[in-house]
Amino acid sequence: MTIEIGTLIYQGKAKGVYETDDPQKVVVEFRDDITAGNGAKKDNLSEKGFWNSIISAKLFEILEEARIRTQYVELIKPGLMLSKKLEMIPLEVITRNIAAGSLLKRYPFEPKQTFEPPIIQIDYKSDEYGDPMLNDDIAIALGLIDEYRLKIIKETTLRINKVLKDFLESKGILFPDFKIEFGYDADGNIVLGDEISPDTCRFWDMETCDTLDKDLFRQGESGVLDAYKKVASMILDDEDKEKWNI
Amino acid sequence: MTIEIGTLIYQGKAKGVYETDDPQKVVVEFRDDITAGNGAKKDNLSEKGFWNSIISAKLFEILEEARIRTQYVELIKPGLMLSKKLEMIPLEVITRNIAAGSLLKRYPFEPKQTFEPPIIQIDYKSDEYGDPMLNDDIAIALGLIDEYRLKIIKETTLRINKVLKDFLESKGILFPDFKIEFGYDADGNIVLGDEISPDTCRFWDMETCDTLDKDLFRQGESGVLDAYKKVASMILDDEDKEKWNI
Repeated sequence: MTIEIGTLIYQGKAKGVYETDDPQKVVVEFRDDITAGNGAKKDNLSEKGFWNSIISAKLFEILEEARIRTQYVELIKPGLMLSKKLEMIPLEVITRNIAAGSLLKRYPFEPKQTFEPPIIQIDYKSDEYGDPMLNDDIAIALGLIDEYRLKIIKETTLRINKVLKDFLESKGILFPDFKIEFGYDADGNIVLGDEISPDTCRFWDMETCDTLDKDLFRQGESGVLDAYKKVASMILDDEDKEKWNI
Repeated sequence: MTIEIGTLIYQGKAKGVYETDDPQKVVVEFRDDITAGNGAKKDNLSEKGFWNSIISAKLFEILEEARIRTQYVELIKPGLMLSKKLEMIPLEVITRNIAAGSLLKRYPFEPKQTFEPPIIQIDYKSDEYGDPMLNDDIAIALGLIDEYRLKIIKETTLRINKVLKDFLESKGILFPDFKIEFGYDADGNIVLGDEISPDTCRFWDMETCDTLDKDLFRQGESGVLDAYKKVASMILDDEDKEKWNI
């Protein structure tokens, strides 16, 4: 397969999006940049983009098999993902199955308290405003989404959570929380975009309770890349591993 | 009427609640203390309690006439309100008709942008956590309220907003936003408690656009008490004024 990579049309903190010769498709480049605290902490972690793209691709494939619309087309090679072009909705949709992270700082939850049903939290994706939490009324009044589409996003998110949680648990990984983003495709469908990786999820080893995600970087610990590799090795099957020679 | 004022059972930043000889009734004392920024800015403003209690009593009466359950029984004298005893729910229910205050700092709304329907924002009443904003999922997961009662609170709040907004506009006052609190009475009914005053509402003079509320104190301006008196003079009828000799 030959993909013509064109102009950079979006530059995020850890990914870039490039045009292709197909106006409905883009190439997402997973870079090695890693940031935390809305960009306050930054580094470059060799091979991080490689592993995140492989993990994201696998989880998008799992979701596509469960008939959930995602932007994923295929992994051209590790680090470069061919994707449907989406008009992104500036919402960060966070699902929480187990209390961790900022939730514990803001509210009196017990660490590791489980949520059944899960909590959905929606933040406004805005560097300028520091990604503030929204409620439904505020999201709608800001014109970010309408009531009908907000309902679709929440229902789809709960389905995504169920599919990913079941899959990850079957692979020995707990899934405390994750952040996803949606966009509109050319037909106006709401489609899962962005990435699903240790940069955007919490993954805990079910046996050892070890952290296998960006929290290691946030907390200044070593072994960040090893944790990302471990996630990949736990969720990929032999065929995937052979394909990417890992 | 003789009311036996008993033990102080709750001491807030600007009000005290005392037992009475009737176990289902309390006396709410409106003090002259005034605070802003979660208590960071404090003062004592002679007669503030007097005016706030009269304004609250009037607005509770307007709501009672519209068949909305409130804690209000009667104003014993300015500063002292006989009220139903409520088990308070630790939620601050904020209704926004016009963009002002913290909303403008947190989100890209235009100053004085109007909201139709109004925005309801619910904060967790907690000095320790700095009154953080909630969403429905978080409020329910914290055990602060259940889904059914949250719906009642929101619907009641929209009714309260309609009744008060209509009344205040008929008196020449714009009603950009306000904060209310609810509690349970002895029968488990959800009842409006706390106060409705220039300490807890924004009131703008419809003609001059002058601020007639605690924003004057927050911004360190003079004339705070004059503004509160002006609100009272605008909303009270001659009978009220005669009764309290104002």
